[in-house]
Amino acid sequence: MLLKENLTQASTGQRITAKGYAVAHKSDTFKPFSFSRHALGETDILIEILYAGICHSDIHSAREEWHKGIFPMVPGHEIAGKVVAVGSKVSKFKVGDYAGVGCMVNSCGECEACKRSQEQFCENGKCVFTYDCHDCFHDNEPTYGGYSNNIVVSEKFAVNVPQDAPLEKVAPLLCAGITTYSPIKFSNVKAGDKVAVAGFGGLGVMALKYAIKMGAEVSVFARNKNKEKEALELGAKALYTDTKGVSERFDFIISTIPTAYDVNAYAELLKFGGEMAIVGLPPADEKLGIDLTRLVFAAGKKVYGSLIGGMKETQEMLDFSLKHRIYPETEVISVEQINEAYENLTSGKAKFRYVIDMKSLKE
Amino acid sequence: MLLKENLTQASTGQRITAKGYAVAHKSDTFKPFSFSRHALGETDILIEILYAGICHSDIHSAREEWHKGIFPMVPGHEIAGKVVAVGSKVSKFKVGDYAGVGCMVNSCGECEACKRSQEQFCENGKCVFTYDCHDCFHDNEPTYGGYSNNIVVSEKFAVNVPQDAPLEKVAPLLCAGITTYSPIKFSNVKAGDKVAVAGFGGLGVMALKYAIKMGAEVSVFARNKNKEKEALELGAKALYTDTKGVSERFDFIISTIPTAYDVNAYAELLKFGGEMAIVGLPPADEKLGIDLTRLVFAAGKKVYGSLIGGMKETQEMLDFSLKHRIYPETEVISVEQINEAYENLTSGKAKFRYVIDMKSLKE
Repeated sequence: MLLKENLTQASTGQRITAKGYAVAHKSDTFKPFSFSRHALGETDILIEILYAGICHSDIHSAREEWHKGIFPMVPGHEIAGKVVAVGSKVSKFKVGDYAGVGCMVNSCGECEACKRSQEQFCENGKCVFTYDCHDCFHDNEPTYGGYSNNIVVSEKFAVNVPQDAPLEKVAPLLCAGITTYSPIKFSNVKAGDKVAVAGFGGLGVMALKYAIKMGAEVSVFARNKNKEKEALELGAKALYTDTKGVSERFDFIISTIPTAYDVNAYAELLKFGGEMAIVGLPPADEKLGIDLTRLVFAAGKKVYGSLIGGMKETQEMLDFSLKHRIYPETEVISVEQINEAYENLTSGKAKFRYVIDMKSLKE
Repeated sequence: MLLKENLTQASTGQRITAKGYAVAHKSDTFKPFSFSRHALGETDILIEILYAGICHSDIHSAREEWHKGIFPMVPGHEIAGKVVAVGSKVSKFKVGDYAGVGCMVNSCGECEACKRSQEQFCENGKCVFTYDCHDCFHDNEPTYGGYSNNIVVSEKFAVNVPQDAPLEKVAPLLCAGITTYSPIKFSNVKAGDKVAVAGFGGLGVMALKYAIKMGAEVSVFARNKNKEKEALELGAKALYTDTKGVSERFDFIISTIPTAYDVNAYAELLKFGGEMAIVGLPPADEKLGIDLTRLVFAAGKKVYGSLIGGMKETQEMLDFSLKHRIYPETEVISVEQINEAYENLTSGKAKFRYVIDMKSLKE
């Protein structure tokens, strides 16, 4: 019934009604929530969401750990589904195609960053994030994410997904995949390099897989030995639980750790000229920093932050992942299990990536 | 008389007596100080010091702003002078040659870092710094620096200086020169690059000159406009006194600032993929850090520390500087003016590099 209504709305230029799971404030649990999305524009597509991954950023956002949130909040920026309607000027998609949406749904398209397809750094400040953001292209209305039955998005911000792709695996690629793939490419990780992956959750496991595919020898740092077997089976050389006493030195380290930790201790494990990419962030009140004195005395070790990736690179990442069958380790859950998933992710009990089967959402 | 005594000591394997200027504790002023140095070993050279530069690190060390000091302390690691005696196995120098000594006087010579001539990172922890250090090759006796009439050093840790070189300019190159030259080479600064030099003292002016020589377009950040004329005359495009409102974006930034400042604000001025080298450090109690959240959101901007340079690169830097006549801006002072120079350097009144004429040291 809902879908039928949506199709009528799309074809008549009306707002698109939607259902999802939202929190009303930072201490709330997820509950069903009805809302509407902007009408289908001529370059927009309407996607019926089939799977939505749960990212640690969702938790940071819903609990206002990074900044003040926009409530009610429907998180979710790892979205895979089916195109059910297209605007009159859409060229990349037709009805029936599969599509993926990641962390962004629009940007200015005109600045230098947008032109080189790094829309996340839109210099006009017009990058619209998938949820918890005011959409400057639509009267500043709040955006709502993927824990819902549909989404309307500019076709430029959706990636093409082949019909035979495993959609529940594609969803987490749109954030966990691109977030790790992008710095691995940026730092030019190549065959024979020694790589360390710090933090072995949803992002860490992707980083491990990509780095191994690039031909690197990869070690993993995790908070305990619980996932050592998985790491070794996936091809890791070793799993460490502490930086102390580690004698290896790395060409590249990617840190996906979402809590406070000693950043310098990892940087000090780099070879001279090595690079460390930070992609995980703790809650803002933990004020994580890099000690400058230690950075200078451990000279020649480059540290940088990395933030998802642009749309062109996201498509490249998806094509690469599908070609090489590099998929996240996922556990499919129902919408009723979101609250439990959040608890498991916070306590470290979660194994890898939770993906919500949106068919579990009742009409 | 002193030199004659030294020559006798050198030829008979006795300890080398020396005179210099020292502080007895962190709040002391510099006063004359008599001491002795280890005997001339078979691969050592004895240098009559003619000029010694004053580096901001000397102040940090003498005032124990970085770590506990070894007192009495004779600072100085920008040393130029004449070789007056050589050990039996010395091959690089003969008596009468000019020589320079920088921040180090020895290292293990066997580890990977030493083998690739990055002796400052000696993996066996045996890098002996020129002063304020225990010399593990000589019964752990304290090392004394260049504010003195002579120095005994392994020939490997002295650079060859041509007879026609301006010695008072060579001295500061051994720290201020290599400290800035090394990261500029490490980050591969090249023609057309946009470069910023943060902090415009003894190091900053060298960074400006090297970067311009590499063909870069260079802007300077200083705490005030006092040295704007000098900067522009030396070829700077602009002198800024604040990062706020600066619209340029840089391929490379070198920070020579020796006090606390907003590191992220500079990193945010990098282009995507740009690199920032930190070579200045504030007193340890100012606990300067890099905010990780800001580094991630200003993604793709690499920050690293740089610490002088190895001996091979130091010789390369010296040859390059002399060939292209890239010299520090110096003001030659007498030993009696050291205390005043320290005050001027701390208050920001100093123009560029003070160099002590060691002939002013009374016998």
